[in-house]
Amino acid sequence: MTTTTRRRSSRSSASRRGAQAAAPIQPYITRQIPYFEVLGDEGLSVIENNAETILEEVGIDFRDDEEALQIWRDAGADVQGERVRMPRGLCRQLIQASAPRQFTQHARNPERNVEIGGANTVFVPAYGSPFVYDLDKGRRYGTLEDFQNFIKLAYMSPSIHHSGGTICEPVDLPVNKRHFDMVYSHMKYSDKPFMGSVTHPDRAQDTVEMAKILFGERWIDPDTGKPRTCVVNLINANSPMTFDDTMLGAAKVYARANQACIITPFILAGAMSPVTVAGTAAQTLAEAMAGMAFVQLVNPGAPVIMGSFASSMSMQSGAPTFGTPEPALVLYIMANLARRLGVPFRSGGSLTASKLPDAQAASESANTLLPTTLGGVNFALHSAGWMEGGLAMGYEKFIMDADQTGMMQTMLKGVDLSENGQAMDAIREVGPGQHFLGCAHTQANFKNAFYLSPITDNNSFEQWDVDGRLDMGQRANARWKKLLAEYQAPELDPAIDAALLAYIEERKASFPDSNI
Amino acid sequence: MTTTTRRRSSRSSASRRGAQAAAPIQPYITRQIPYFEVLGDEGLSVIENNAETILEEVGIDFRDDEEALQIWRDAGADVQGERVRMPRGLCRQLIQASAPRQFTQHARNPERNVEIGGANTVFVPAYGSPFVYDLDKGRRYGTLEDFQNFIKLAYMSPSIHHSGGTICEPVDLPVNKRHFDMVYSHMKYSDKPFMGSVTHPDRAQDTVEMAKILFGERWIDPDTGKPRTCVVNLINANSPMTFDDTMLGAAKVYARANQACIITPFILAGAMSPVTVAGTAAQTLAEAMAGMAFVQLVNPGAPVIMGSFASSMSMQSGAPTFGTPEPALVLYIMANLARRLGVPFRSGGSLTASKLPDAQAASESANTLLPTTLGGVNFALHSAGWMEGGLAMGYEKFIMDADQTGMMQTMLKGVDLSENGQAMDAIREVGPGQHFLGCAHTQANFKNAFYLSPITDNNSFEQWDVDGRLDMGQRANARWKKLLAEYQAPELDPAIDAALLAYIEERKASFPDSNI
Repeated sequence: MTTTTRRRSSRSSASRRGAQAAAPIQPYITRQIPYFEVLGDEGLSVIENNAETILEEVGIDFRDDEEALQIWRDAGADVQGERVRMPRGLCRQLIQASAPRQFTQHARNPERNVEIGGANTVFVPAYGSPFVYDLDKGRRYGTLEDFQNFIKLAYMSPSIHHSGGTICEPVDLPVNKRHFDMVYSHMKYSDKPFMGSVTHPDRAQDTVEMAKILFGERWIDPDTGKPRTCVVNLINANSPMTFDDTMLGAAKVYARANQACIITPFILAGAMSPVTVAGTAAQTLAEAMAGMAFVQLVNPGAPVIMGSFASSMSMQSGAPTFGTPEPALVLYIMANLARRLGVPFRSGGSLTASKLPDAQAASESANTLLPTTLGGVNFALHSAGWMEGGLAMGYEKFIMDADQTGMMQTMLKGVDLSENGQAMDAIREVGPGQHFLGCAHTQANFKNAFYLSPITDNNSFEQWDVDGRLDMGQRANARWKKLLAEYQAPELDPAIDAALLAYIEERKASFPDSNI
Repeated sequence: MTTTTRRRSSRSSASRRGAQAAAPIQPYITRQIPYFEVLGDEGLSVIENNAETILEEVGIDFRDDEEALQIWRDAGADVQGERVRMPRGLCRQLIQASAPRQFTQHARNPERNVEIGGANTVFVPAYGSPFVYDLDKGRRYGTLEDFQNFIKLAYMSPSIHHSGGTICEPVDLPVNKRHFDMVYSHMKYSDKPFMGSVTHPDRAQDTVEMAKILFGERWIDPDTGKPRTCVVNLINANSPMTFDDTMLGAAKVYARANQACIITPFILAGAMSPVTVAGTAAQTLAEAMAGMAFVQLVNPGAPVIMGSFASSMSMQSGAPTFGTPEPALVLYIMANLARRLGVPFRSGGSLTASKLPDAQAASESANTLLPTTLGGVNFALHSAGWMEGGLAMGYEKFIMDADQTGMMQTMLKGVDLSENGQAMDAIREVGPGQHFLGCAHTQANFKNAFYLSPITDNNSFEQWDVDGRLDMGQRANARWKKLLAEYQAPELDPAIDAALLAYIEERKASFPDSNI
């Protein structure tokens, strides 16, 4: 069966069971509303100027990677030990000379390719938690089964555009081999785009090799002769102002294969940056520019995404706090700075410190996701599932968040000002004191007029009482079970599947298990 | 004891028990960030033009109020039966000729006066629910005790700037006399500004008489010789395109006393307006302009606030839905239209259909409160406590919402770009690979650097486990009890108190109880 055939049969079964199947509604979102910006040109220039001062005077450490230091020396930077100081404007110049403003991340199903950058937003599952959580079993270490379950849920969520990467750590597998199963699971259980392994340069290389097998003839773009960008990868800075050899090694592998690197200063403000919004923004810009410029030096033209992850801190305990106003202000500024620099931007998501799918989780997530949407994030990692400051991936939380990204998708479509949208005929037809329920315009537009959440309860108190007085977490619990029960895998060419499994088997046999 | 003395002693006890007492932090917020706007000039002009068409061609019904019809005839409108059609531009012209762009609502404590309009935001408790809810006793009819409890909670919430109006219906009192106790409770238990009764012209008049007693010499502004605006009042249209005699009667009483009227089309889109955003916006503008122009005809210069309340509808049940994208888009448009018209704007709040203080309540409220904040609402009614589509006022929900308005208050302050805000000294001092916790800049700024919620849990999983695994609703439950236990009433001049009670006693004795 070809992919096309599969999609046709999926559609008909989807219509039988409602809208929750992976119908190809919108592979990503192109915004029809303006950006929200909190600073004007003058303020943004202050931040940009301070970032250049950080790069020039303070410098960035590139640790345990002599090749990286030599690359910087060759580019004209001042390298003292592992400290690299970049002449004013060098990083910006390197980025603007060759980094694409926007690029396509290819999916194995081309209908699910995503455009990253410009006016586009891609909502991506959360990344990197050792634990998983659901209402039935509580909090526990993640397994490969959990990992695959979240891939399936993302695949079935129309407003989650991406399969993600390390959705949770499958701790039932050895650390040095689990990347094979993770990458394979993305390839097997979803046809949405995915992220690669970054925990070791060899694992990055394995990701690239497996992507070559998956994409086959599509791997090379015949127009450019270069690999298509099929994997996006998360390269975090060790803030403040440091990159380590693991991340640099993975970045080099991906850059040389023309795969995309997100360069993200991961900052707990007050500990890894100043306690102020403007200070955190300047440092974030400096670090991100250093990383993106490095990628351009390794392979000019390789796609990069400017990242920003900034949380505030509890002044009582030193713990990171989410959904507070200060990180939202940082986000708005960084999104604006990325547009001025001309690179795609990653930040935000649905962040929370809560251990439950409760009101704290919902309000903190909303206070992150709305700025993500209004500020203009292009690659919105952590958009679904994140709990407990990233320590846990939640099943109910995933469902709740995927509902919210659906609302944001609708919001980004903006206002219909067509004649039908203006609805003056309806107002003329109905008139004072009457109701619009039965009028022709309402009948014609009612079905798709309003976003309908699958998990909110809008019924009367009495009906809600009869239905068992469930809260939203409990309704989300029922929904993820229903989705997993209904999941149907996208067809994968058996020859490709066999080749992937053969690659994994051979590689796994070539070195012993280890948990380092 | 004078008011000044009282405030001094309140401050010292406040410092003993933390920041939750009614410290005069900020009586209202003046925004330092831009507005978020979803339409440009061209789109807004389309809506404005359609609103004029509605007023001119379709018209507005003014029901059971011959005086109102005569006022419109005298103003040059075309009056057929109760249908009033206004020549294009008449309403706008009447409003812009005399309605203030911004006005002061006076509080009995002048430090709590609020500026309504312009770049200012005032967060106001929810209004009008027959039921109350808390986690201990569940949902039940509201009583005067509940009503007074919410006044106390609002008084003690630094980011709730207003005492509100009909916070909940005290159903233990007769319908035709409960306004005395409600208005008195606002006067007695808070010194923040409040709202008056609108359910009958006589009750509006009682509100005015009691305000005269409360404000005494301050009632008349010696500069203008007119009453100061001490009460804001909620005048809802009976959408579509209808005003009834009750609301018109109350509006006339308040307008003639120079008290403020919020003219709010209260719209369930799809039932009381077209199912589209642009259609709902045009109808809302038409209805609001008709009401505001009427107030200007009654008493030119009397303060008005343009209101908009638009909810979407479940296409399954016809129930109103909240926190969805479409009402947020309506809000952004209406806020923009109010600025173009030059009048203060009321909308938004913390709306939800949820019956619990759960994730649904939190996300729907955030999806309303963030647009309220970013769109530029001046008078944000329903900012705290609203549950179940307005049918219930929630104790835990109030606490959760008052936390969120605190975050919005911080957000509206924008970004500090001072030298201290830029924090370049800190970055120079710390340098790559070190941490900022101990540096001089962090030490100097840490305490007030980040918004700290009193009810979120940012602790480790282990600590949260030890603390009893509470969700946010449970923590909010503990907090409202703590606040009520700590409440201290603001001093009220005993002579004024006695005069108010005497007025109420005499009036209550002058007509029999009734539940109509």
